[in-house]
Order: sequence, then structure tokens, then C-alpha cells
Amino acid sequence: MAEISEEEEIVTLNLLKQKMHDFARERDWEQYHSPRNLLLALVGEMGELSEIFQWKGEVPKGLSDWKEEEKVHLGEELSDVLLYLVRLSDMCGVDLGQAALRKIRLNAIKYPVPQSNTDVVTSSESISLVD
Amino acid sequence: MAEISEEEEIVTLNLLKQKMHDFARERDWEQYHSPRNLLLALVGEMGELSEIFQWKGEVPKGLSDWKEEEKVHLGEELSDVLLYLVRLSDMCGVDLGQAALRKIRLNAIKYPVPQSNTDVVTSSESISLVD
Amino acid sequence: MAEISEEEEIVTLNLLKQKMHDFARERDWEQYHSPRNLLLALVGEMGELSEIFQWKGEVPKGLSDWKEEEKVHLGEELSDVLLYLVRLSDMCGVDLGQAALRKIRLNAIKYPVPQSNTDVVTSSESISLVD
Amino acid sequence: MAEISEEEEIVTLNLLKQKMHDFARERDWEQYHSPRNLLLALVGEMGELSEIFQWKGEVPKGLSDWKEEEKVHLGEELSDVLLYLVRLSDMCGVDLGQAALRKIRLNAIKYPVPQSNTDVVTSSESISLVD
Repeated sequence: MAEISEEEEIVTLNLLKQKMHDFARERDWEQYHSPRNLLLALVGEMGELSEIFQWKGEVPKGLSDWKEEEKVHLGEELSDVLLYLVRLSDMCGVDLGQAALRKIRLNAIKYPVPQSNTDVVTSSESISLVD
Repeated sequence: MAEISEEEEIVTLNLLKQKMHDFARERDWEQYHSPRNLLLALVGEMGELSEIFQWKGEVPKGLSDWKEEEKVHLGEELSDVLLYLVRLSDMCGVDLGQAALRKIRLNAIKYPVPQSNTDVVTSSESISLVD
Repeated sequence: MAEISEEEEIVTLNLLKQKMHDFARERDWEQYHSPRNLLLALVGEMGELSEIFQWKGEVPKGLSDWKEEEKVHLGEELSDVLLYLVRLSDMCGVDLGQAALRKIRLNAIKYPVPQSNTDVVTSSESISLVD
Repeated sequence: MAEISEEEEIVTLNLLKQKMHDFARERDWEQYHSPRNLLLALVGEMGELSEIFQWKGEVPKGLSDWKEEEKVHLGEELSDVLLYLVRLSDMCGVDLGQAALRKIRLNAIKYPVPQSNTDVVTSSESISLVD
């Protein structure tokens, strides 16, 4: 694991989009970044993310019993999924940040906040954070 | 498709994390948001994203020949992947934005910018945006 | 759920390949069955399979507490993954059955049966059924 | 790539199920084979399968321009998906072979064979091999 100084920075989706754009252009990789190529790359990264969790059974929130290096590795795989997702969105002409805000608003309409205890969903049948 | 006004807003990963946190808490859904539940939900959304592209053959960058409603639908599925990814990261105690910046720096070391034309990668064998 | 009589039949991978071949030809769907189209369809089905498990936390072997209709639905999603996998293999010119036997033999070499108790793997670190 | 003699054998889903069962029992790996562990392992293998296709753009049926070693590698990844799928089905108490035959029959009802040319689907909108 290379040591890299990490200055804190406010991370917007547009910042990541721009960094991915520059990264690809500088290496002349834009030719490979067709939407379906990127989609399959995203699926590949999702597989690597899943492998981290595959033999572990349930894991606690916060991963309190994971080694630091495991958490760093997890951060890398989560990032890989994010970075390809950002790049795929860009190559499809989708503003991912605005689309995400819109989707949260749609979800809030679809799943209104229960007004009293009797409304509270008690079964996982009708649960969906997004859909 | 519901009509929702979209005010432009700077979208940071922390903003999305906070919105997902509030959304889950208000609906008492935190109990369902274990890391592996969220991971499988993420895989489910990845599947829905793939379905959009599955019978289309290659599609051009920018999706110039797609109908507007198809692009809106695509934005929703891309968002679903993003929102579960943000929530999964949060439930794992990973700062996704900082992890993504770090990963880009690592990638830049792993794949240096070629200094002259003779260095340019010409085969897809050694291409990887992230790994 | 349609009622369909089920005669027991020995199910070979070649039988499924033939049935999928006939199914596509009769409907003139061969034109859509390019390798990458089928691969994305497979990813889509994997997503539907994951959705069945996504909010359940750990589930016991045999799914003893699942309703019959849930198990039937699960069988359908497992089948969808299998059928696209069979079709993808066929469209790639891969003999899936022989490839699977070969892979099991390779795995047996890679992960020899421990000869005594002291060899038994006790950590999930080095576990892999296939790789 | 290890050289392994391949005797031709009729490959049934039950044969693969039995081989996977024996493989796990001999190595004392049954303890790791919970349904959700296997499901995530399956997602991991799907990712490795996708990686083979990710930078290639469209590929022709039969993969006529692939190197032999690429096709062997592809056969291994297709097999990994199959083997975990077989094992997952077994651990869920699902008879995968019978479920697949049943699903094909359901699909034939859902998508009847067109009786004349005028019925032929000409758009990819209503195409689905399985669903």
C-alpha cells in the first residue's frame, strides 16, 4: 500500500468527474471508455467489492473487528465502484449529482415519513431505500 | 415520472451521506442497513442498471439516439447505485470521498502519464482506469 | 405463478443449451444474443437474485423459514442466471459442462484435501471453492 | 494453466452438485457455505467474468478472433459462476435442474412462438429470453 499524503478536500461529484476526465485524456484512454465498456468494468469492481465480504458471514456496522488494512482495502474497492460510476455517467451525458438529488426527492414521495407509530413499517417486505 | 423541480446544488458525497442517513432514520430503516444487506441491494441496483443496456449492442457516447425518458430512467438507476454505495460506505465507517481521492492518486502512480508518443499504450491489455 | 406439470427429467447442460438454442431460433431472437448482450442480461438476473436476499440478514441453509412461494421465486431467479449462463457459453463457443469438470479438477489440485487434522484450514483467509 | 486430461462425460446438474458437495465436505468448507456467503462469491465470479469482456467493445459470436488461452480463461470464469450457482442452489434446497426446465416452460407460455411473419417482434423492447 503506497503511502500518500491525504489533504482533506471537499469532494463533489463534479470534482471526481473532472479528475476522471483528465486521467483518461492524459493517458489517451478515452478511446476505451465507451458506455458498455465502462459498465462492464463497473460490474467487475462490484465483484471485487463483494469478494471482500464473501466469506465473512454478517459483519457489524462500522466493521469494528476488521483490521486497518482490510478497511483500507475496502475503501479502495468502494472507490473503484464510485469512480467507474462517475465516469460511466459522464460518458452517458448524465449529471450524476443532480440525478441523485432528484432520486432522493422521488424516494421521499414514494416512501413518505410515517406520521405516527401505527404507520411504521414493521416488515422488510415493503422496505426499499431506493428502487 | 413525477415532476420535481430541480434546483441546482453543489453535490458533495458528504451531502448525499447526510441525506441518506436522515432518510433511513426518519423511516426507522436503520435496522435493515447492515453492510451485507446494503451490499446485496447495491448488486440488485447494478443489475437494474445493466438491464437498461442489455439488448442494445454498443451505444454511442452521450447516448445521442436515446429517448429523453430512457436517459431519465438511466439517471435514476445510476443514482440508485450511487446512493446505496454512499450508504454502504457510511455503514462501514469509510469516508468515501477521501477514499476516492486517495485512489485516484494511487492510480496516477500506478499508471504514469506517458512522456512521449513511444510510451503510449496501444493495446487494451494494460489498460485499467482503476484496479 | 402458472401451474406447470413437472415431469422429472435428467438435466444435462447440453439439454439446456439445446432448449435455449431452439427457444431463441423459434422467436428469431438470435440476432439479440451477442456475447456482451447476454453477459449484461446475466448481470441483470444476478441482480434479481440478489434482491431476494437483500433485506433478510443471514438466512439458514435449506431456507427452512421461507414461504413456499418465496422458494419457488428463488428457483426462478437461480434458473434465469443458469439459462443466460448456458446461452452465453454457447454463443462464445465454450462447452460449459466440460469446462466445469475441468475447473473442478483444477480446483482439486490447487486445494488438496488435507491429510491430517493439522492441515485443516481454520481461517477463511485461504478459502476459495473456485477462484 | 495446468494440463489436465479431459475425458468426455455427460454433465448433469446433479453430477456437479454432488462434486461440489464432496469437494466442500472433504475440505471441511461446509461451514463457510451459507447462502449469502455463496451468493456474494457468485457475484465476485460474475465480476471476474465481466472483466474478460470489459475493454473489448462488441465481440463476435464464437469469439473467432480470441486467442486459445483467452477462451480457456473464459471457460474457467464461466465455470466458476456455474459452480457457485450450483452450490448456492443446493444450500438453498432448490433442485436447479428441475427449476430450469420449469422456467423454460414458463417462458414458452409467456413468449409464444409467433405463428406468422406479422407477429415477429421487430423491436428489442419486448425481448426477453428469461425474465
